[in-house]
Amino acid sequence: MDINQKSINYLKALSAETVSHANSGHTGSAISGSPILYALFKDHLKFNPKDPKFLGRDRFVMSAGHVSALLYSTLHLFGYDISMDDLKKFRTCGSKTPGHPEYEPELGIETTTGPLGQGVANAVGMAIGETMLASRFNTKDLPIIDGYTYCYTGDGCLMEGVAVEACSLAGTLNLNKLILLYEDNNITIDGARTLANNDDTAKKFEAMGWNVLLVKNGDDYASCSKAIAAAKKSNKPTIIIFKTIIGIGTSKQGTSKVHAYPLPEEELKAFKATLGIETSFEIPADVYENANLSVQRNIAYNNAWISLLNRYKEKYPDKFKELSSLWKPKKINYQKILDNLLKEPAMAGRDYSSLVLNAVGSVNTAIVGGNADLIASTKAFIKDGGIYSKENRSGRTVCFGIREHAMGSVSNGLALYLGTPVFDSTFAMFANYMLPSLRMRSMMGLPIVSVLTHDSIDIGQDGPTHQPIETLPTLRTIPRYTVYRPATPAEVVAGYKQFLDNPKPTAMVLTKSKISNYPASTIENAERGGYVIHETAKNPEIIIFATGTDVSLAIEVANKLSVSTRVVSMPCESIFASQETAYKNKVLLKSAKLKVAIEASNDTLWYKYVGENGLIIGVNDYQTSGNGKEVYKNAGFDADKIANKINKLIKNV
Amino acid sequence: MDINQKSINYLKALSAETVSHANSGHTGSAISGSPILYALFKDHLKFNPKDPKFLGRDRFVMSAGHVSALLYSTLHLFGYDISMDDLKKFRTCGSKTPGHPEYEPELGIETTTGPLGQGVANAVGMAIGETMLASRFNTKDLPIIDGYTYCYTGDGCLMEGVAVEACSLAGTLNLNKLILLYEDNNITIDGARTLANNDDTAKKFEAMGWNVLLVKNGDDYASCSKAIAAAKKSNKPTIIIFKTIIGIGTSKQGTSKVHAYPLPEEELKAFKATLGIETSFEIPADVYENANLSVQRNIAYNNAWISLLNRYKEKYPDKFKELSSLWKPKKINYQKILDNLLKEPAMAGRDYSSLVLNAVGSVNTAIVGGNADLIASTKAFIKDGGIYSKENRSGRTVCFGIREHAMGSVSNGLALYLGTPVFDSTFAMFANYMLPSLRMRSMMGLPIVSVLTHDSIDIGQDGPTHQPIETLPTLRTIPRYTVYRPATPAEVVAGYKQFLDNPKPTAMVLTKSKISNYPASTIENAERGGYVIHETAKNPEIIIFATGTDVSLAIEVANKLSVSTRVVSMPCESIFASQETAYKNKVLLKSAKLKVAIEASNDTLWYKYVGENGLIIGVNDYQTSGNGKEVYKNAGFDADKIANKINKLIKNV
Repeated sequence: MDINQKSINYLKALSAETVSHANSGHTGSAISGSPILYALFKDHLKFNPKDPKFLGRDRFVMSAGHVSALLYSTLHLFGYDISMDDLKKFRTCGSKTPGHPEYEPELGIETTTGPLGQGVANAVGMAIGETMLASRFNTKDLPIIDGYTYCYTGDGCLMEGVAVEACSLAGTLNLNKLILLYEDNNITIDGARTLANNDDTAKKFEAMGWNVLLVKNGDDYASCSKAIAAAKKSNKPTIIIFKTIIGIGTSKQGTSKVHAYPLPEEELKAFKATLGIETSFEIPADVYENANLSVQRNIAYNNAWISLLNRYKEKYPDKFKELSSLWKPKKINYQKILDNLLKEPAMAGRDYSSLVLNAVGSVNTAIVGGNADLIASTKAFIKDGGIYSKENRSGRTVCFGIREHAMGSVSNGLALYLGTPVFDSTFAMFANYMLPSLRMRSMMGLPIVSVLTHDSIDIGQDGPTHQPIETLPTLRTIPRYTVYRPATPAEVVAGYKQFLDNPKPTAMVLTKSKISNYPASTIENAERGGYVIHETAKNPEIIIFATGTDVSLAIEVANKLSVSTRVVSMPCESIFASQETAYKNKVLLKSAKLKVAIEASNDTLWYKYVGENGLIIGVNDYQTSGNGKEVYKNAGFDADKIANKINKLIKNV
Repeated sequence: MDINQKSINYLKALSAETVSHANSGHTGSAISGSPILYALFKDHLKFNPKDPKFLGRDRFVMSAGHVSALLYSTLHLFGYDISMDDLKKFRTCGSKTPGHPEYEPELGIETTTGPLGQGVANAVGMAIGETMLASRFNTKDLPIIDGYTYCYTGDGCLMEGVAVEACSLAGTLNLNKLILLYEDNNITIDGARTLANNDDTAKKFEAMGWNVLLVKNGDDYASCSKAIAAAKKSNKPTIIIFKTIIGIGTSKQGTSKVHAYPLPEEELKAFKATLGIETSFEIPADVYENANLSVQRNIAYNNAWISLLNRYKEKYPDKFKELSSLWKPKKINYQKILDNLLKEPAMAGRDYSSLVLNAVGSVNTAIVGGNADLIASTKAFIKDGGIYSKENRSGRTVCFGIREHAMGSVSNGLALYLGTPVFDSTFAMFANYMLPSLRMRSMMGLPIVSVLTHDSIDIGQDGPTHQPIETLPTLRTIPRYTVYRPATPAEVVAGYKQFLDNPKPTAMVLTKSKISNYPASTIENAERGGYVIHETAKNPEIIIFATGTDVSLAIEVANKLSVSTRVVSMPCESIFASQETAYKNKVLLKSAKLKVAIEASNDTLWYKYVGENGLIIGVNDYQTSGNGKEVYKNAGFDADKIANKINKLIKNV
């Protein structure tokens, strides 16, 4: 038998038995996708299992994350640090082989996938990242950045809006080194794909500016490989439609039954028999040797790439230095940035944010990002950096269009490719369109700040559809996600400082309205996440917690009270909660007679700080469309009213 | 001047001055979209401002919600209860004319819009609803249900994934009475549409199975009207692409500057002068009379429709009775349903849910819904109701495909059209894909239950991408949204009972794993939202709050403690919070020495119940892929460990 066919057979068997051994997972596409993934790794993908993260590699994304068994088997076959034993630990606690692929570039896993559509959008982001780096650093003679982004996808991903949004963007941006490998088996969990989706996929992608290739028999290695070769030559992004039969060779082939069906022992045996395989979790030496040919060719490529880079270093020492410095920490004088802000008349949070982003962006030139068609509103863009487009690959701001979800996931891909700080931006309310992507970036710990403006009901006239009420608590519940809501210019600066000091998934939730400055609001204080911003006299008996614009109101309330009152500004609760106990105790004033929280948002968080007997001024229902100040006041955010409430409560203590 | 042109001119002027008067809002498309909306209302839409909710009407959705000024002006012109004075109150508190249209069918506002893409998907749902009702009730001679769904959309909506998902579904389902009116002005806020979107829209829609019509001059009334007439005859859903110049006639026409630009006094005057208009907020009698021709024709249509319905009532009394009874409360014996459940061996929450949904669905035959390609997993479908498809319009379960967001928004449209209970369903984790649609349905108070299964980290092997941690708190923070997490069969029944007794936006968050029954868990108790499910002895000193599967663990913990302990099951915190104080006090055991909460979820909610000194066993970080029980235990959900913690804390009290 041809060694390629033999290798594919073993890949199919290994993938299927990985699922069967775990008695959990997805067999169908792990079998039918084998020839596609084999052709990619054997003949095309530039990778190096011995130095998996080398910059010159291609990127491969398994967007159909449930097809993880095939990914792990392939990575095993092609020399990555995934052993037979690891495959046997598939879907067990602490294994290298979880149910869905989890970001681990050392193992060849370039992004976490599972929630459908995310991987496709990640791949678009990676492809954008590649063009940005290439445009900035490549010279005509020494193209050091020259990688493809491949993405394996199934029906599920391509039905998801986030993927279609991202593909529309990819066509617009003409990302010709992006190649989607679409395993078109025409089956979804509920049955035939046509139950829910009768798209002419080829035509749809053509309409979005893509090159479309069709492989009529996706089970045929040669056809698969040939199509990928053709895709690489395209001057547009390419989707290759591989027609396959899901779970081909099993008794349930071509039906939805085989999708998530671990083959029982006898069926597995019968299936392997059709492939001429009797062993379990064994691969013959000639199959390994054949795969190793690709590994060796790729190691040679990696070495050639290093030579290229060395010639680049010699010939273009400044550019090389610039490249190497991309990933090094930058010295930024944040105090000076703040001092400059304070020279200006008071501005809105979004304006301060814009100035800070541009100030840090002029020092850290690695910072890139984009906006969901709200550049003039959220003001998140790099002014001198230009707009990224197919004509201007060095633009630093991507126009994502009215596609918040894709923005989130494409930004994830951008951060995965570049490894440097990225921003994205929309209205705070529309963070809910991006939520799945925010979760993925949090899981991966990606260096992305979301600039989310129009943070409160006080935006007023756009009405309840645009007034965030539950946005802050929603973002705060995402594990490993940092949520800032700055009250002052210093807190805006501190938010960016903490993001850039240790870039991780962060939201800057900013006002549309003017914010104030207070003497106690220093960068150092703000970096604590929560601090005393105001105290009306010594030995306070009341403590008021607030964030953002509500801090000014809290201070106004405090000044109206006859009892000494402390106001705590808490721009970032999670950072405050992580401070040492002594500091927290100092701020929290546990002895307070009354604890109050003021935040124009769902109130859930604040029980933690004010206890069962405290007072929370929050917003738990939709408000109306009207003048912002009026809406704010109508919702109970009125200094006199709040002061009265507090006075009444204090009497009863 | 031709009266139609004159009417359009006044509509343009009125829309522009509505925005200018408020000094807030969106002028651009309110002007350029005027001929389209005028043509629709003048010549095609079946509506009746004197009986706005009559069943036989067409539906109109303004998906580009920011174009609200045009919508209100049009409704004013065509006799709805929106006065000139109301237009002058545009975007002020308490007005009938909020910044974005808010659901008010009496005023001709069929859905709330603003967040882009939602309206398009709502329209798809309405069109599905129409076919369902038509298929069930129409006879060949008396087609009582025969309405079109029109939807006005701009670039923004059509870039959003949710709209593309919904349009792909609409094509698949061949909803030929759905007509999208696409005002293609080629401008978005950031500038030219092509910055971010270079789709061939016509081709893209053809690929999705749509009929595509082009109107080269969208400013020409006759062309607009003719195209709508053609669309009505199509045997496919139709998109009409109206090429327009945004803000046509203003000094900033054709640029993004006019998008959200209230024309200043002088510019407004100059613009109106080009239309031959000198007055403000005035419409000449002949323009009103001309509009009234359409109103009168439509009133006649409405009367004819009533005659049709009367003939139907005479000829098909049983069918008429069935139709009328759709919206009447149904008597359902919930106790009997529960008794039947309890006869079976213990099952998972999702299985109980499936049995209850089918039991209530056999009595209340109005219930329809759909599933995002997880029928076999979430088990949310009407078994005997068939799958809805273009061939089977009477199917009661729609296969939404792998499109959770569209599912949410299409279901909103379905509920808006039908006004009867609707369900939708996916994994709990993927509720985050649907979030914007859940918010919209909550704002509108729509009768939809989301069946969300796989509710906890204990699903195990699919790993962190599929394990909900922040889903419960996220859903709980949506204003006016009811979130159930049942622990017992009775709680599952109670959740459905409360939903059907007073249908409003609800999530049923259900286990994949088996749940138990407890004697105290009656429907009546469960309907309280929280109740004492277990007490180890009289005069308890410890109280443990829990939900869902965690209730069993809480009871296990209680039974291990030497101190008398009360366990409270809280399937629905918002309902519990709304109980009378006496009941709450009785349950809450304020005197407890120690308050504990156990929920395998982000812990934010529970501070409210356990206070600052309580113990919360929650999950605030991603867990691993592995055996479900192991994952659960590793996260700290272990009876012995928790009992030990409690014993230590109790000693210190």
